[in-house]
Amino acid sequence: MAGSDEVSNKQVILKHYVTGFPKDSDMSVVTKTMKLKVPEGSKDTVLLKNLYLSCDPYMRGRMSKLDRPYFVTSFEPGSPLNGYGVAKVLDSTHPNYKKGDLAWGYTGWEEYSLIASPLLLIKIEHTDVPLSYYTGILGMPGITAYVGFHEVCSPKKGESVFVSAASGAVGQLVGQLAKLEGCYVVGSAGSKEKVDLLKKKFGFDEAFNYKEEPDLDAALKRYFPEGIDIYFENVGGKMLDAVLLNMKLRGRIAMCGMISQYNLEQPEGVHNLMQVVGKRIRMEGFIASDHYDLYPKLLELVLPAIKQGKIVYVEDTVEGLEKAPAALVGLFTGQNVGKQVVVVARE
Amino acid sequence: MAGSDEVSNKQVILKHYVTGFPKDSDMSVVTKTMKLKVPEGSKDTVLLKNLYLSCDPYMRGRMSKLDRPYFVTSFEPGSPLNGYGVAKVLDSTHPNYKKGDLAWGYTGWEEYSLIASPLLLIKIEHTDVPLSYYTGILGMPGITAYVGFHEVCSPKKGESVFVSAASGAVGQLVGQLAKLEGCYVVGSAGSKEKVDLLKKKFGFDEAFNYKEEPDLDAALKRYFPEGIDIYFENVGGKMLDAVLLNMKLRGRIAMCGMISQYNLEQPEGVHNLMQVVGKRIRMEGFIASDHYDLYPKLLELVLPAIKQGKIVYVEDTVEGLEKAPAALVGLFTGQNVGKQVVVVARE
Repeated sequence: MAGSDEVSNKQVILKHYVTGFPKDSDMSVVTKTMKLKVPEGSKDTVLLKNLYLSCDPYMRGRMSKLDRPYFVTSFEPGSPLNGYGVAKVLDSTHPNYKKGDLAWGYTGWEEYSLIASPLLLIKIEHTDVPLSYYTGILGMPGITAYVGFHEVCSPKKGESVFVSAASGAVGQLVGQLAKLEGCYVVGSAGSKEKVDLLKKKFGFDEAFNYKEEPDLDAALKRYFPEGIDIYFENVGGKMLDAVLLNMKLRGRIAMCGMISQYNLEQPEGVHNLMQVVGKRIRMEGFIASDHYDLYPKLLELVLPAIKQGKIVYVEDTVEGLEKAPAALVGLFTGQNVGKQVVVVARE
Repeated sequence: MAGSDEVSNKQVILKHYVTGFPKDSDMSVVTKTMKLKVPEGSKDTVLLKNLYLSCDPYMRGRMSKLDRPYFVTSFEPGSPLNGYGVAKVLDSTHPNYKKGDLAWGYTGWEEYSLIASPLLLIKIEHTDVPLSYYTGILGMPGITAYVGFHEVCSPKKGESVFVSAASGAVGQLVGQLAKLEGCYVVGSAGSKEKVDLLKKKFGFDEAFNYKEEPDLDAALKRYFPEGIDIYFENVGGKMLDAVLLNMKLRGRIAMCGMISQYNLEQPEGVHNLMQVVGKRIRMEGFIASDHYDLYPKLLELVLPAIKQGKIVYVEDTVEGLEKAPAALVGLFTGQNVGKQVVVVARE
């Protein structure tokens, strides 16, 4: 029972490891209690009030038992999920954070998180933009788009760029960065609404609904009669196979993720890798967290562009932790339109 | 009928486009006649006496009708094959070549070739090594090994290197370059004889017969308990899938070729590409002919090493154009032990 100085703390718990497509019911929302104070004697510890939580595709891997973890570790069944979020510091014994600070980084899927020696927590300096953007364009997905496009793909003006899952948290920014760079940009997405967003809101030159294309190779040939210089890979499987057939000589593929594959027992086979040899293609994997040193460059580019309306960002928000399991699961059926955010509290 | 100033000219002809595994009988050896003189008025033309012809895996693609050629073109049914070879200039109206010169480059699969404006013909300056080496270690396969290993993979001392098809024209040199660089090197090949060569002749640290490994993943784990930094890809398919599971963080894969796939109706699917994302792997295709500017660096490294016995090179030679079809076809069943060369004439 909660003492007088304790508050209730809702948490989203992983009930068990998941195989195949995850379901809401693989998680449960429970209520615990906690004191809103860093316990006496705890060094370098922060107590966070979580405001916005980020639903990200890479979290699917963490719902499984990973035999050989290489960049993420499994969630622990019976414990709250964790991931990127925006939070307010309520109490701190960490020299870098004080009460009232806003920060984004790793936090728990709960109302309040007590974190000792935070692995990644970046203080928010600019609050004249929506705070939730720090789960997206100004957070990990933003760095992902920036690094994948600018560092991995080395774009040149006039080049042809294809982005899959293009209306998602990362894709929508990649497309807009490519337009700023003077590229021809085409995106694919899974609904008419998303395709309209790509063309009308994000300024992609063209966009198509991959679900309505029985022949992805033919679709790509329609939009890229002379081939693709840069592919920003978010989906994997059949799309990657079709893209390989349409890459130009010395094309570059930023290997960001493969959301179409995460729930399959065995990922689909990709058959056209011989194209990589003949066309001298570079395929390169990358992870945002290797590149946080470039975060200031992202802010420098994106913050003024947001304020001037040159870059826009679309979020899909749900209110309340209770809705977090469905929001996370919805990523894998493409339910979200734009970056999926869970609002835990607005301040 | 041959006039008094004409000689007979044996040629290896492609009879028809090939699907699936090629057979000797897809080619025929015919005898034509020709004059041993560049015809009057032909500018920039050389008449070559072919000495050694190179059997290379990439030639398989050229035996098919290529709908979308991107780095090679199809052979022409009814005409002689062409490819890399070593030749002696018998007559020339080209300012760069004179009678008696030795050269390597593109030539026909025939005794004598008349070539106008040769696309690639490099004069041989060093004749104190076997001339046939200019079809291998001192020719295109040598540049392939050098560029793929040194330029694409950026090796560091102590790194772990895996080479497939390791006793072949390219693989045997890659392994020796890696040893010179201070790497730990393991090779795979398809017979006990080849595995012995790798270990005893080329100095690989370890080698295994992939045909005797029911579980390639397990085999790689045995030789690379801590993973692979550099993979020199010559085979594709199941081996690539197993390698991806065993790559280290920030590993590099030089995509040189996929000989296991060239005769399949559809290439096998590769399922483990998600490893490229999580492990930040770079897979990069390359073609020797983009990098002939580095040829002097290859010679500088390899010529003295050959003379000092620090690098050795094993060739599998057949004598006579009649044996060329079987020698070429044999590449795809792994019949050759070392670089496959056809001796047309010794001088």
